[in-house]
Amino acid sequence: MIVKGGYLLDNFFKPKSIAVIGASHNKKKLGYLIYENLQKYGYEGKLYGVNIKGGPAHISRRVSRKKSGAQNMCGTTLYRTVGDIPGPVDLAVVVIPAPAVPQVIQECGEKGINSVIIISAGFSEVGAKGKALEGRLKMIAEKYGIRIIGPNCLGIIDTWSKMNASFAESMPDRMKISLFSQSGAICSAILDWANAREIGFSRFISLGNKIDVSEDEIMDFLAADEKTNIILAYLESINDGRAFMEKARKLSSRKPFIIVKAGKTKEGAKTISSHTGNIAGSDLVTDVALRQSGVIRAESLEDLFDMAKIFAFSPEMEGSKVAVVTNAGGLGVMLADAISESGLSLAKLSDKTQSVLKEHLPAEANVHNPVDVLGDGRADRYQLALDEVFQDDGVSAVIVTLTPQAMTEIDKTAKTIAKMKKYGKPIATCFLGGEIIDSGRAILEEKEVPFFEFPERAVKALDKLERYWAFRRKRADGGNNFTYKKANVSRSLQSAMCNGRKKLSEEEAFRVLKDCGIETANCEYGLGFEKLLKRAKAIGFPLVLKTAAPGILHKTEIGGVIIGIRDEGELQKAYFSIRDNVRKAGFAKDAERMDIYRMEEEGLEIFLGAKRDPNFGPMIVFGMGGVMVETLKDFSYRIGIISEKEAKKMIDEIKSAKLFHGFRGMPEAAIGKMAVSIVALSHLMHDFPEIKEVDINPLKVTDKKCVAVDGKIILDL
Amino acid sequence: MIVKGGYLLDNFFKPKSIAVIGASHNKKKLGYLIYENLQKYGYEGKLYGVNIKGGPAHISRRVSRKKSGAQNMCGTTLYRTVGDIPGPVDLAVVVIPAPAVPQVIQECGEKGINSVIIISAGFSEVGAKGKALEGRLKMIAEKYGIRIIGPNCLGIIDTWSKMNASFAESMPDRMKISLFSQSGAICSAILDWANAREIGFSRFISLGNKIDVSEDEIMDFLAADEKTNIILAYLESINDGRAFMEKARKLSSRKPFIIVKAGKTKEGAKTISSHTGNIAGSDLVTDVALRQSGVIRAESLEDLFDMAKIFAFSPEMEGSKVAVVTNAGGLGVMLADAISESGLSLAKLSDKTQSVLKEHLPAEANVHNPVDVLGDGRADRYQLALDEVFQDDGVSAVIVTLTPQAMTEIDKTAKTIAKMKKYGKPIATCFLGGEIIDSGRAILEEKEVPFFEFPERAVKALDKLERYWAFRRKRADGGNNFTYKKANVSRSLQSAMCNGRKKLSEEEAFRVLKDCGIETANCEYGLGFEKLLKRAKAIGFPLVLKTAAPGILHKTEIGGVIIGIRDEGELQKAYFSIRDNVRKAGFAKDAERMDIYRMEEEGLEIFLGAKRDPNFGPMIVFGMGGVMVETLKDFSYRIGIISEKEAKKMIDEIKSAKLFHGFRGMPEAAIGKMAVSIVALSHLMHDFPEIKEVDINPLKVTDKKCVAVDGKIILDL
Repeated sequence: MIVKGGYLLDNFFKPKSIAVIGASHNKKKLGYLIYENLQKYGYEGKLYGVNIKGGPAHISRRVSRKKSGAQNMCGTTLYRTVGDIPGPVDLAVVVIPAPAVPQVIQECGEKGINSVIIISAGFSEVGAKGKALEGRLKMIAEKYGIRIIGPNCLGIIDTWSKMNASFAESMPDRMKISLFSQSGAICSAILDWANAREIGFSRFISLGNKIDVSEDEIMDFLAADEKTNIILAYLESINDGRAFMEKARKLSSRKPFIIVKAGKTKEGAKTISSHTGNIAGSDLVTDVALRQSGVIRAESLEDLFDMAKIFAFSPEMEGSKVAVVTNAGGLGVMLADAISESGLSLAKLSDKTQSVLKEHLPAEANVHNPVDVLGDGRADRYQLALDEVFQDDGVSAVIVTLTPQAMTEIDKTAKTIAKMKKYGKPIATCFLGGEIIDSGRAILEEKEVPFFEFPERAVKALDKLERYWAFRRKRADGGNNFTYKKANVSRSLQSAMCNGRKKLSEEEAFRVLKDCGIETANCEYGLGFEKLLKRAKAIGFPLVLKTAAPGILHKTEIGGVIIGIRDEGELQKAYFSIRDNVRKAGFAKDAERMDIYRMEEEGLEIFLGAKRDPNFGPMIVFGMGGVMVETLKDFSYRIGIISEKEAKKMIDEIKSAKLFHGFRGMPEAAIGKMAVSIVALSHLMHDFPEIKEVDINPLKVTDKKCVAVDGKIILDL
Repeated sequence: MIVKGGYLLDNFFKPKSIAVIGASHNKKKLGYLIYENLQKYGYEGKLYGVNIKGGPAHISRRVSRKKSGAQNMCGTTLYRTVGDIPGPVDLAVVVIPAPAVPQVIQECGEKGINSVIIISAGFSEVGAKGKALEGRLKMIAEKYGIRIIGPNCLGIIDTWSKMNASFAESMPDRMKISLFSQSGAICSAILDWANAREIGFSRFISLGNKIDVSEDEIMDFLAADEKTNIILAYLESINDGRAFMEKARKLSSRKPFIIVKAGKTKEGAKTISSHTGNIAGSDLVTDVALRQSGVIRAESLEDLFDMAKIFAFSPEMEGSKVAVVTNAGGLGVMLADAISESGLSLAKLSDKTQSVLKEHLPAEANVHNPVDVLGDGRADRYQLALDEVFQDDGVSAVIVTLTPQAMTEIDKTAKTIAKMKKYGKPIATCFLGGEIIDSGRAILEEKEVPFFEFPERAVKALDKLERYWAFRRKRADGGNNFTYKKANVSRSLQSAMCNGRKKLSEEEAFRVLKDCGIETANCEYGLGFEKLLKRAKAIGFPLVLKTAAPGILHKTEIGGVIIGIRDEGELQKAYFSIRDNVRKAGFAKDAERMDIYRMEEEGLEIFLGAKRDPNFGPMIVFGMGGVMVETLKDFSYRIGIISEKEAKKMIDEIKSAKLFHGFRGMPEAAIGKMAVSIVALSHLMHDFPEIKEVDINPLKVTDKKCVAVDGKIILDL
């Protein structure tokens, strides 16, 4: 039970009394539908209708599409205002035109109602005027300490208190699946779909415009809710990225939390722009955040429905080895393909299992996985094969599939499959066909065995199930006691900010990186001829020489950069050549000052960067660098502070990771040093919110070292 | 009409008389089902039953699941052998135990029957014994000139001659969609699925083990068939890759040809192995072949069904701009996401369209694409929006979608959508929900408007439709008159083959590449000290020096290679150093002979290779080279001879293609020269079937040149 501003969300789900403000006798009005839904689906608390016109309501019985048991409610008294209601009211459901809503909320406040669902549309979703209305609502709500769900929503359904405070067309069955959604229209579709597939709900919440109660509070509520085992969600935006991640991680570690996240956030689009602007797909940050929090992301509603089925009806999946039992070789092939393309793998059946199968199945049957009981396999043959396969310790889950053939016993086979639930392993089924297999499907759905229309979808669902349970079993990382010269960094940033510079000079950027523990290329800045010759040896050949004359935008173009300087003789020649070029180009001032760098010839070019997302905070990007940054887009991502263990995972996640492991004569790269650089950058970003982005490209990596050759730091002024 | 061995496939589809060999009075036997299917679905030719036991059949009427109109056929005479049948027989359908089949085929031959469908299983699919039986069948068939479909198949259905010569559970409706499948079980599932969705068929062919008639003849037949507008296929193997590609290309240029190809061929797995063995996924060659032939590849049966709907009911799609009309913002967002992730794009509605929409839709409605008619949008609002959107010239196709909300008119909206067919543009619909939307779905299916359960699937289907029509409109490439020193190449290969060497020496390989027009690195082989100094200048610094002493496997390890030689002084030092190292390592013979190479420092490292697939022929691979070959796997592929235009497309297909176009200060690469190298390699592979594989890695590419720095050629001895 979550408290904010002193009130509980409980009143939204277990109110003892409800007032429908805008209740109407006109069957075409939503106020009619909502009042009637509350009545006919059996809400047992006190129910009041409020309508500014008052008088007796002529709300008559409406034909229910699914449930019966509705009461005839002719003659119910309608109150003119909530103030007129004699007893206390726990929850108000408001369904009147938008402009009248603030006044009514005020009246709710005066009446002492602390929980309000606003169904009415016409707020921020229609533009500036509506946005202003919302502002007024918020002020009133704050004044009276009212919690609001909506506006612009479908309402709430709670099957445990038999409360249907929505204008949905039906009442779902009771199950321990809860759902919240930002879109009312998607809510209706989900409800309709679920009804057709024997899937019920516990709490069903349409959030609408989220002017007050938003996903993070609902997540807390559902995390603690005994009547909720699984949470589904449809979201178009996430209000507070950081809070969301924290709550989602907690929630996911207790219950499967499955999300469809539609829409590309504008914030996401800007993420990781920097000069390598197109690393980030606009949706990328959200995706990284969801994955890191253990949230199961459904790619579409179709996926969401599949996930709902598999998570609702499956026990824990304790491995990734899948067995297949089929009556059609072709289906076996398709499943083997799909499994090997997923994160799962085909189980290797034990010798014992294979020999039992060989003994009892016809000679032509395939007793390896996928097990083929053949086209003329009846239910008894399925039973035999399934009993063996389920008992095989090397099998973590089983996919059972059939096509309708001349001898196939569809219903009996379905019942046989349902019996396999006793083995406590996840099952996914797929009967391929149309009308003929419908009765089998119905049996499986009734017995709560996940059914999928196509083999690939069964595999995808099991894959997500497995990944979720792997996340649950994963141990927490050890502590994270990274230290660096924080005070120095602070001073460096301060000095740039005081000068109003958004971009640190390379010298400053290198200093910051060095202070936070990232090795940078040997270099010195603004040296004259004498010093240059002296310092060159200490820095080490080969060298790069660059003009330090101020104001030159394109140093290379005017001949202000020379690379590959191998000895003192070449250095002298280079010096004079650059000086003359710079002067010729019209930059007389400080033409004799140069920057000098050790040229890091060897090694892989890595990209290490960070970008602060306004919603989720800093995201760290690791991947292949150099010119490949923009073409390969071979990256891994993390949000927030990264442990060394996690950093090593990041390194191994990229497609080119092979290159780090002594691949084809390339030296074993300095994984440890790269990991430390990642950890360091994540702390830097966490500790200094004034840093907007960091780009290290390339970070040169060999088996011995890991050196930032170029570094860019941008501040948020 | 295709002739092979003097007989037409026509007899399989339009026989004037059929003998069912194995017809039975036992309702559980397939012979019963097949005879009855022929009778009850109205086959109008002469029908004979043959059973070794003879006597009157007691085949009685069976309850049809779909069609009525079956005849009662009690008392039909069964002949003991086909020889006993008085009249001529065009087609025999054989459904008796496998061991008895050869004898019966012999009798068919003697009777003069030239077309036989063998339903019976128990042949090569069950192992060696069955394979031997198939061998006997083939011999007999050849002797008598009999064409065979099967064995191990479901049979054939032809809705135009009302012939159901299969043991399928139902008879499809008549439509101009034909299907062939290698798996009988998948056939049943497809038929069942299609029946439930108002989709019918023209020719429906289960190919089974394909001992005679295989996909390529069927493709020819269907290409010429007036009763076929669309072809669907399920294949597990392709018998003759090259013939398949040729026929598929011809077929696809006339009719949409949609394939599910399941199973990973072993041949595919071996493809493009070479030392970069894992470039090729096992399924890769097939995928390249299908794409190159304009075949629409469905990734799953689900996909196949979706393709069937969109192709069956859609006119030509003349662009890639899609408009969306919805009553739910959330659905609009999901569709916009899906469209932008596909090859399609969101149409930009014209100012006129937008202003008309603005005038007539409510103020809150979105008049940009996706057009949102709002949650309370009734059919009239859909009609208004659709009429405008369909008439917009910038719109190539329209997706209409709805969720069931309080005011939604599901059926009326469905009828409104169906009327839009008059505009001659493709339509895809998606009503999201369960039972409530079923009636709308039924209306759309009856009116032949493609309906999809989920928005993403509608987008995917339209995407394939668009790609197919783009393929159809594509102009054929101009001629391909590439010439090279073929005689020289022939001599080089000959010499290696005569010596029984599978792998050409580098010198030989470079010569072959040069002779076919691919530039190779400047080099000379086996020079002594004097010559070395003389030739060095001609080749140009910097240089690489390598020992030419025979028998050294790892030249680098013993100090037999020195790179980066910049002048004559360094060359001299390097020479003596290598000579001494080689001698120390115990290779005294020819220790003073060295190979010398120009070191190509600059440029991108490209991979260009070719591998001969045993089924499809040579496949050319182009992509990023160097050490990236095995990690990035950024490649494009083509099979057969490649034109320069096509080669340029290959170059631009890889993800890193940006690098070739003056990206980030990198010089504009020598696209033309790369293309010529691709063309050259494709001709080399085409002209010399004795070459098994070629690997050029890297091909160094700058804006000026394109040089093979390393080349490997393997022969097939």
